[in-house]
Amino acid sequence: MSELKLHILGCYSATPRAFTNPTAQALEIKNHIFLIDCGEGTQVQLRKQKIKFSRIKHIFISHLHGDHFFGLPGLLSTFRLLGRDTPLHVYGPKGIKEAVTMMLKVGSAWTNYPLLFHELSSSNSELIFEDEKVEVYTIPLFHRVYTNGFLFKEKLGDRKLDINAVLNYNIDTCYYQNIKKGKDITLDNGEVIPNGKLTSDPVKPKSYAFCSDTSYNRSIVPIIENTTLLYHESTFLEEHANLATQTGHSTAKQAATIALDANVERLILGHYSTRYGNINEFKQEAKLVFDNVELAEDGKEFLF
Amino acid sequence: MSELKLHILGCYSATPRAFTNPTAQALEIKNHIFLIDCGEGTQVQLRKQKIKFSRIKHIFISHLHGDHFFGLPGLLSTFRLLGRDTPLHVYGPKGIKEAVTMMLKVGSAWTNYPLLFHELSSSNSELIFEDEKVEVYTIPLFHRVYTNGFLFKEKLGDRKLDINAVLNYNIDTCYYQNIKKGKDITLDNGEVIPNGKLTSDPVKPKSYAFCSDTSYNRSIVPIIENTTLLYHESTFLEEHANLATQTGHSTAKQAATIALDANVERLILGHYSTRYGNINEFKQEAKLVFDNVELAEDGKEFLF
Repeated sequence: MSELKLHILGCYSATPRAFTNPTAQALEIKNHIFLIDCGEGTQVQLRKQKIKFSRIKHIFISHLHGDHFFGLPGLLSTFRLLGRDTPLHVYGPKGIKEAVTMMLKVGSAWTNYPLLFHELSSSNSELIFEDEKVEVYTIPLFHRVYTNGFLFKEKLGDRKLDINAVLNYNIDTCYYQNIKKGKDITLDNGEVIPNGKLTSDPVKPKSYAFCSDTSYNRSIVPIIENTTLLYHESTFLEEHANLATQTGHSTAKQAATIALDANVERLILGHYSTRYGNINEFKQEAKLVFDNVELAEDGKEFLF
Repeated sequence: MSELKLHILGCYSATPRAFTNPTAQALEIKNHIFLIDCGEGTQVQLRKQKIKFSRIKHIFISHLHGDHFFGLPGLLSTFRLLGRDTPLHVYGPKGIKEAVTMMLKVGSAWTNYPLLFHELSSSNSELIFEDEKVEVYTIPLFHRVYTNGFLFKEKLGDRKLDINAVLNYNIDTCYYQNIKKGKDITLDNGEVIPNGKLTSDPVKPKSYAFCSDTSYNRSIVPIIENTTLLYHESTFLEEHANLATQTGHSTAKQAATIALDANVERLILGHYSTRYGNINEFKQEAKLVFDNVELAEDGKEFLF
């Protein structure tokens, strides 16, 4: 069974402090390392967590506020300096290409690797990446500017072969692939063995939903339903719910309500306003609504 | 006598590592804090060194390579979030305004304080800032893109009043200002007291020259002659002089040669390539040519 790993590179909002970082995450899923958002200083955070730059081939940017993408020009430049030649795909709101390439252009800089921007403008959830094992969908969010969350899903894998059963029936190994795909088998004597006797259900696919920044909005619930792990921003506590509404953010209670309604397995909070001294209050508030809740912290890893 | 203070916020070149920072410095001179270059992460470095953001009113950008200005959009955004209302002046190469404002514009961000860009394009040294006590000149440098160093100079102050002499002559305090400006004094009895009997020479003005990035070029010598403190880049050691030439950088020996020829009091090296394990080698190499040499290090302060 494969394990997913989420690295929190930065999880604080807005103004920087000496020892906190703006939003960035790296998700290890199947053979990918997907970078999600890229606040200023992300490349240094990647170094600190010993994530190999060359393994990043896809970057997903939720929206174009500085604390979510001002680290991108620097990272793209570093890729060049390190002699990268493999393509890099950047998914983000319309406008990202012009702004980022302008930052490189004024310094007569360029990329010596293919840099492909996939600019997003739809207000509906859409499939933006797919390979044999993974799919990535946008999650339209509700912030002051055009914003998407991202849903990363493992595809349903093969059925699990019951090795004792296939040996019992003396089935040749050349049929194993078909059996794992769900096929029945006809033995040499004409007997048909139904697939259910040779396999069990595949491992349940896992999924990760990243939702930042957004005000409380139930319309995301059907998109993230039954997700294994949900990161939902909680910039404020309920005592500042009015500020959350004004600024297009959520409270810890609201994040927990989304987690409950969407029946996710596990919730991670983050994007804390720096006004709060103790982030444990976010957890306490969320726990009143949804029990399986944890706090993002810069440098923390979550396995799931 | 006023003291100048130079904060090294970052002094490494090119690709970032977990614990080094790209170029940025803060110079305290008279009542100013001038920010010089602004690589990614500068705002965090400012926080770590407890430099008050509100005291920065002038930012000088040498050139538009990422490791010298990618921290600027984030810093400008933070100024807004902190509620700044005082004007900010940014001096840098032509193009800086478009690139930086584009980064803010795509996120519907703005500045709630006056942001004034002073775009530079001259290839001659020019006076770009002046007030009662300080002057700032550009130092045309020789890099792969249009680049300026900056020369920060205290103006010559008032002559020093000899308080015993003025008391002896029973001179009214209302004349002190004129005396400090160099005027002679006529006593009530008609006797003229030459200024030299009442004052001594003013404190020698101090100056700081920032020269990064640049290949070795003696044409900067007349501009920085007799400077109190010179920061000159030394990206490479002499063993890689060919790389220095190719990339528009200097070696430690070349930096020391400039310091010697310009008769500066003190030299600081920096902008080290991350290829070198031990930066002491830069000092050793420079010392063979110029004795009073020190190494910049992130977080270090120089008083002069």
